Amino acid sequence: MDLGIAGRNAILLASSRGLGRACAESLAREGVNVVINGRTATDVDIAVTELRAAHGVEVTGVVGDSTIAEVHNALLAACPEPDIVLLNGEGPTPALFDTITEAQWAETAQRTMISPILFVQRVVPGMCERNFGRIVAISSAMVKSPNPVMSLSHGPRLGLTGVLKALSKDVAKHNVTVNQLLPERFDTGRQLQMAEIVVAIKGITFEEARAEQVATIAAGRLGRPEEFGDAFAFLCSAHAGYISGQNLQLDGGSYEGVF
Amino acid sequence: MDLGIAGRNAILLASSRGLGRACAESLAREGVNVVINGRTATDVDIAVTELRAAHGVEVTGVVGDSTIAEVHNALLAACPEPDIVLLNGEGPTPALFDTITEAQWAETAQRTMISPILFVQRVVPGMCERNFGRIVAISSAMVKSPNPVMSLSHGPRLGLTGVLKALSKDVAKHNVTVNQLLPERFDTGRQLQMAEIVVAIKGITFEEARAEQVATIAAGRLGRPEEFGDAFAFLCSAHAGYISGQNLQLDGGSYEGVF
Amino acid sequence: MDLGIAGRNAILLASSRGLGRACAESLAREGVNVVINGRTATDVDIAVTELRAAHGVEVTGVVGDSTIAEVHNALLAACPEPDIVLLNGEGPTPALFDTITEAQWAETAQRTMISPILFVQRVVPGMCERNFGRIVAISSAMVKSPNPVMSLSHGPRLGLTGVLKALSKDVAKHNVTVNQLLPERFDTGRQLQMAEIVVAIKGITFEEARAEQVATIAAGRLGRPEEFGDAFAFLCSAHAGYISGQNLQLDGGSYEGVF
Amino acid sequence: MDLGIAGRNAILLASSRGLGRACAESLAREGVNVVINGRTATDVDIAVTELRAAHGVEVTGVVGDSTIAEVHNALLAACPEPDIVLLNGEGPTPALFDTITEAQWAETAQRTMISPILFVQRVVPGMCERNFGRIVAISSAMVKSPNPVMSLSHGPRLGLTGVLKALSKDVAKHNVTVNQLLPERFDTGRQLQMAEIVVAIKGITFEEARAEQVATIAAGRLGRPEEFGDAFAFLCSAHAGYISGQNLQLDGGSYEGVF
Repeated sequence: MDLGIAGRNAILLASSRGLGRACAESLAREGVNVVINGRTATDVDIAVTELRAAHGVEVTGVVGDSTIAEVHNALLAACPEPDIVLLNGEGPTPALFDTITEAQWAETAQRTMISPILFVQRVVPGMCERNFGRIVAISSAMVKSPNPVMSLSHGPRLGLTGVLKALSKDVAKHNVTVNQLLPERFDTGRQLQMAEIVVAIKGITFEEARAEQVATIAAGRLGRPEEFGDAFAFLCSAHAGYISGQNLQLDGGSYEGVF
Repeated sequence: MDLGIAGRNAILLASSRGLGRACAESLAREGVNVVINGRTATDVDIAVTELRAAHGVEVTGVVGDSTIAEVHNALLAACPEPDIVLLNGEGPTPALFDTITEAQWAETAQRTMISPILFVQRVVPGMCERNFGRIVAISSAMVKSPNPVMSLSHGPRLGLTGVLKALSKDVAKHNVTVNQLLPERFDTGRQLQMAEIVVAIKGITFEEARAEQVATIAAGRLGRPEEFGDAFAFLCSAHAGYISGQNLQLDGGSYEGVF
Repeated sequence: MDLGIAGRNAILLASSRGLGRACAESLAREGVNVVINGRTATDVDIAVTELRAAHGVEVTGVVGDSTIAEVHNALLAACPEPDIVLLNGEGPTPALFDTITEAQWAETAQRTMISPILFVQRVVPGMCERNFGRIVAISSAMVKSPNPVMSLSHGPRLGLTGVLKALSKDVAKHNVTVNQLLPERFDTGRQLQMAEIVVAIKGITFEEARAEQVATIAAGRLGRPEEFGDAFAFLCSAHAGYISGQNLQLDGGSYEGVF
Repeated sequence: MDLGIAGRNAILLASSRGLGRACAESLAREGVNVVINGRTATDVDIAVTELRAAHGVEVTGVVGDSTIAEVHNALLAACPEPDIVLLNGEGPTPALFDTITEAQWAETAQRTMISPILFVQRVVPGMCERNFGRIVAISSAMVKSPNPVMSLSHGPRLGLTGVLKALSKDVAKHNVTVNQLLPERFDTGRQLQMAEIVVAIKGITFEEARAEQVATIAAGRLGRPEEFGDAFAFLCSAHAGYISGQNLQLDGGSYEGVF
């Protein structure tokens, strides 16, 4: 399938590793020039080098925390007219509801909800003018099924979900789509980290913690990052202009609800 | 119907006027002692006097902005062991997505999402210990159907929705329920204010602005505050302990979605 | 709380036992005249006698299967102008998806989806003319979270859910509301029957089967029928005219989804 | 993007025209052998000839109503081990709720809900054994936002939605996915037919009726069948095995709800 986006330009927040990196990989394979972002220069450099070598597209690296204005500036300096934007960022660690402080709530709201909104505000007008835009946020399955120990994650993420949904209604007429991908348990460093937390809390082995992860997935396995990247690339394709405001779950069929 | 809550104690945030006041009215009528809150002493005094006279329950007034810690302190000083809590606050004014500043997002997130969470953190442990609790938030129909000019409202409100839903799963076993009411166009000062905004923006008459409001409601009328108060009282009743994590829409049947 | 419906007339399908009976009880207590229905004369007679004695309202019994036209005729003969209608019927037994025959699908669709629709078609026009109507269907929590062994239940029930939702939009302006209650594990004969099925299939004790039922409920207990009846009565109240098209879950806070 | 399904075999119900035909086109382009189905020999012959010429895959035609057992037999005779199945069928015409007869409900339930279920029952065991299956149903946006004059459509379709969702949970572990596509206003014969109905009912011109259709779509245009076909093909891809139980809306961003 020709996605019809070769030569397009994309900015991908937090894309040097994990699901973000997989998204960059799928876009680059389709001929899209990509701006890679991550907090450590090493990770960004590796991603840039590998993507450039593999796909022959323009690949630029921007090192820095994707949630601060300076990094937004640098990203837009590297790619002033992005056709495609991936919103992504590191998820917070689990925390018991009772123990979360006001400062944690405020910081997480800033990083997970407000910061991506501010970046979207900067790119949407240009997308509307140029009559093409694909904005996709990596959210979490928990925005549909909140987990009590992950309030810092699903709270602000749901806020972002609502804001993006409303925005999608306004910009659809300009061929700008806004969608979210809702992953649940992909085989990335994030799940390794979560398994290690469970090992520490429950005193079980790492293998047991991983087996617990798999047991929660109807598909009986973790997702593969490249599956995620391909779903992202599809939503960015030229022919996906009629799909907007969607929250597509990539969860191995695990969500219990009808909608 | 005997709601089985006579003699219980309730704290109602932002309850001196509008829907919050209607909630206080319905509770007081059922014999619940209520702590009233509002930002102006006059409004609070009137509410306290009227409720006391009408219903013969204990009525206490706490003047102040319901979103700040000092007022939370005063509310809990007036009622250290609340059985019932109404989360409520003034909604933000409409704003075009492009024009909203980082400071506005942060302030609204604090007021609409974080502040109610902090208050809930303070009252939930006691409710669980005492094996009775009814927490109800006045949210907005827009958390299910976001309106592009109300991002400041539905964004943080959706964040709160998710956090409360997750919490509800953990505390159900202690006979503590957590629900939201989702109003759409009730005949309160809020709708008058919204109509005046529309008058100013569109240059239509006030009557036309009101007719536009009614035209959006399947029931062909605005809701009455006392209808809202009674729904709230029902969710607070002793017999509503099996209803939790719900988002009950009071919208005159207007929401288009199945769920 | 005065529900404002004393003297109103209600037809309650399948109301001689279980949740239907609890609904009749709550309505009769509020002064509503009720038509009771059940398939066995003994059950109906007992219900009629007890309700009449306890509440001093008019109670009529109609014996017969609530899914057939003759019984609909008899119900409407007993109460030609119902203000309130409860849609209810016996749920199908669990069945593996692969084993369900075309005849079973057709019969269940007729009984669970089509038959209640036909009854609604007969009562709605009069409700609209008289400017008051409360239609409530007892559905199942499974319409939001389908269980693979209960396809015969949630399939047709979801069909009914959609038809009633659409209808609700049209009739709201006539003060006719249409809502559903979604129970999950109430302490009725139905759960005893389900427990016995599990005993037979898994070879565990009845106590273990009951403990399994409770373990699925966040509240840590089964629901009480009178809790259900009161929620039903509330939705039928005069002041609930602004609540329509809702699917209210009574599941002890167990549903995992936000909406 | 290589979908990884070249050489796979697909049965597509009701695929000689419209969205079904577009789905066949996208699959054939990816190297999938397809069984085409339609009620008229002419349409089927044209589709078979054109697809074969354009894509060089095996194309078989089966003439007949996709909702009857004989046609199911013929489809499975033509392709005994399908890897991919498209569930599709003609939608019912609009009808006022009050006027729909029991026979119409029963017939539509059979055609729209029960018949596809029966076909799924026949293909799922083999898919599970062979460890690959992609079942996609063309449903309607109305299963999420029911329209009062389309009860015959969204009622049975919602029933099917629930049954397929439950099934998806059971078969995910066998790499069998079950999803639905929810179109809203694609530029096919169906929308022409709907426009003509509106012309007849409202006495407006055809152009006005078409403009009304477009006005309901946030994207400001009708969808293109090939956009639909590509979304279908993506869900059938080898890399989409982690996406199941989803209801993906293709509606130009029009649905108002968050989820």
